[in-house]
Amino acid sequence: MKRYLIASLMLMAFAGSICLAQTDQPEIKDDFKPSTLNQPGQEYPQVNSQGYARFRIIAPEAKSVKVTLGLGGPRGGTELTRAADSSWVGTTAVPLDKGFHYYHLIIDGGIFNDPGTLNFYGSTRWESGIEVPAPDQDFYALKDVPHGKVEQVLFPSKSTDTIRRAFVYTPPGYDKDQSARYPVLYLQHGWGEDETAWTNQGRANLIMDNLIAEGKIKPFIIVMTYGMTNEIKFGGLRNFDIKPFQTVLVDELIPYIDSHFRTLPDRLHRAMAGLSMGGMETKMITLANLDKFAYIGLFSGGTFSMEDVNKTPGFKEEVKLAFVSFGSRELGGNRPSFFGGDPKANADSLKAAGINCVFFVSPETAHEFLSWRRSLHEFAQLLFRD
Amino acid sequence: MKRYLIASLMLMAFAGSICLAQTDQPEIKDDFKPSTLNQPGQEYPQVNSQGYARFRIIAPEAKSVKVTLGLGGPRGGTELTRAADSSWVGTTAVPLDKGFHYYHLIIDGGIFNDPGTLNFYGSTRWESGIEVPAPDQDFYALKDVPHGKVEQVLFPSKSTDTIRRAFVYTPPGYDKDQSARYPVLYLQHGWGEDETAWTNQGRANLIMDNLIAEGKIKPFIIVMTYGMTNEIKFGGLRNFDIKPFQTVLVDELIPYIDSHFRTLPDRLHRAMAGLSMGGMETKMITLANLDKFAYIGLFSGGTFSMEDVNKTPGFKEEVKLAFVSFGSRELGGNRPSFFGGDPKANADSLKAAGINCVFFVSPETAHEFLSWRRSLHEFAQLLFRD
Repeated sequence: MKRYLIASLMLMAFAGSICLAQTDQPEIKDDFKPSTLNQPGQEYPQVNSQGYARFRIIAPEAKSVKVTLGLGGPRGGTELTRAADSSWVGTTAVPLDKGFHYYHLIIDGGIFNDPGTLNFYGSTRWESGIEVPAPDQDFYALKDVPHGKVEQVLFPSKSTDTIRRAFVYTPPGYDKDQSARYPVLYLQHGWGEDETAWTNQGRANLIMDNLIAEGKIKPFIIVMTYGMTNEIKFGGLRNFDIKPFQTVLVDELIPYIDSHFRTLPDRLHRAMAGLSMGGMETKMITLANLDKFAYIGLFSGGTFSMEDVNKTPGFKEEVKLAFVSFGSRELGGNRPSFFGGDPKANADSLKAAGINCVFFVSPETAHEFLSWRRSLHEFAQLLFRD
Repeated sequence: MKRYLIASLMLMAFAGSICLAQTDQPEIKDDFKPSTLNQPGQEYPQVNSQGYARFRIIAPEAKSVKVTLGLGGPRGGTELTRAADSSWVGTTAVPLDKGFHYYHLIIDGGIFNDPGTLNFYGSTRWESGIEVPAPDQDFYALKDVPHGKVEQVLFPSKSTDTIRRAFVYTPPGYDKDQSARYPVLYLQHGWGEDETAWTNQGRANLIMDNLIAEGKIKPFIIVMTYGMTNEIKFGGLRNFDIKPFQTVLVDELIPYIDSHFRTLPDRLHRAMAGLSMGGMETKMITLANLDKFAYIGLFSGGTFSMEDVNKTPGFKEEVKLAFVSFGSRELGGNRPSFFGGDPKANADSLKAAGINCVFFVSPETAHEFLSWRRSLHEFAQLLFRD
């Protein structure tokens, strides 16, 4: 009887551990492949079909190697362990969200990049990047369709006494018909990022190429420049002064673009959008310059409330599109109030007032680039319809 | 007497050590400044007016941190030492050559990049970069002159079944006069590098902007693509097959460029040049396609001998410029024979045969990018004169 009891308990314990494994630690499929953002020839990091990421770092004499992704550690992150061959290996304890993620290594207390991957400018440093395949990744894939160009321009800025850089997406065919003129979208990165973000992390050029190839949009130009956001600490946001960047964008860059590219240089053919802090900049600059912009997009960067409408002369008449988006994981809890009220309720109130306000939620993503790739994909299809 | 002798020897030893200090270890001036290639806001690495480089790395728990620059270690490099604040610091034992250098860190036996600097693709990986100011740096500086664009194009390649990337420099004014057509230089990187090298490390676009602003050249287009060199090990060079890249360049990229840019699509308005292994590719491709190229540049990548002339039908008649350059530190010893004979003697023999052969030596530089920036600067001024 006693032996039977022990056997039963063992069975329960075994069953329990199976149950636990299924709930907290599902079986990790052994179908890992190198991340598509790896440097040429690099096997690691890898991602499997469930979204788990696996890392392998060579540092034979290190005391500790940690990856700032996943939830294995006390403050997040994945501690790697030394393998028999002196490499450091580890797999995230949970699957990562789909899409692009920044990360870095912490080696013996210092911050370094994973030598296996390409780097992307975020958090005011060039970070490592990893890509988890998403079910809808086709819309930002490099495909055999006509491709536009991404042009680096260096433009003079008297207000800052600098020569500044912008990247300009010109659609396929731009060089063919020399009489065609195009609308322009000014597209801003977030805090910690720069003018490289929207093409490198965001794949804005590929999203456009694919939309144009599918006939879903008429071609337009996208201009991306540095939003001068990264000198500002989050705590100092209340004292944020939009003027210096507004001067560069409105008084210097727009005239430069209109004189160096075949644009349609009027408000009905000019849009502005931005992600996160770039959304905040977009809102401030467009509402102060409705004579220059008719289409506005805020991606994880605030909402439009009726208070905004009422205190902005001409909002109802001039704004052809007020687009607001978030990743689903950004919503709920106390978050919406931080962004100026419940964004869905705000959007509904604008719609009720007859304003073309569109609210979009990216499924199962957070404050990360897949939310913003999807936002651009939606936003682009709503632009320049008037 | 004996005491006197000892005193004399001590004096000599003392004098000797002063002498050694002056010869081998001159006083290091305390005028270090952040390298111009540092990431935004990063104080280290630094360079002083003599060319010494100083590094500071945060890795509190590391056992050893080494930088692969300078000559402090047994196999080259500079061992850093732990400072009182647990950072790792060190200065190269010798001044570095002027110009751009690749490097990386070795931390506890692993290869990582210096988080202080930007990365540059070389040695088939994204490496750290550092810039030592040169006396002639003005020719590649970012100045307040009209700037051309660097355009990323994605072109289809049937022979490799891929969509490939090229960067295209278009000169200032390209978008103004829609009837103007331009000559084209195809410009190749070296082994371990890719299509980003000539603008990032080489500053090709700024060299062109400055030459055009000074009225030293007529504007032309530069096209840079990946030379497919990096899968080839140096030991396998004898089996090197130029065909796959030649097909991409001659049969796919050139027609794409001629149909998407306003080029002068004939041999008298087309040049090719390359550095190191890109020079070898340039020599093979141009000599096999003299109906397509009239101007040829080999930068630290071989020479033209009379044997080359004699075995290449049309060389004397068709080649308008055969340009050969090296860094001064590459010459001497057994090196020239590795590159196909003494390049100076070879150049003299071509000149004697009535061929427009120009031999250029970059002062006090090695197989590095300042040699190639200077080579492009010289070469560009000799192009498209017929």
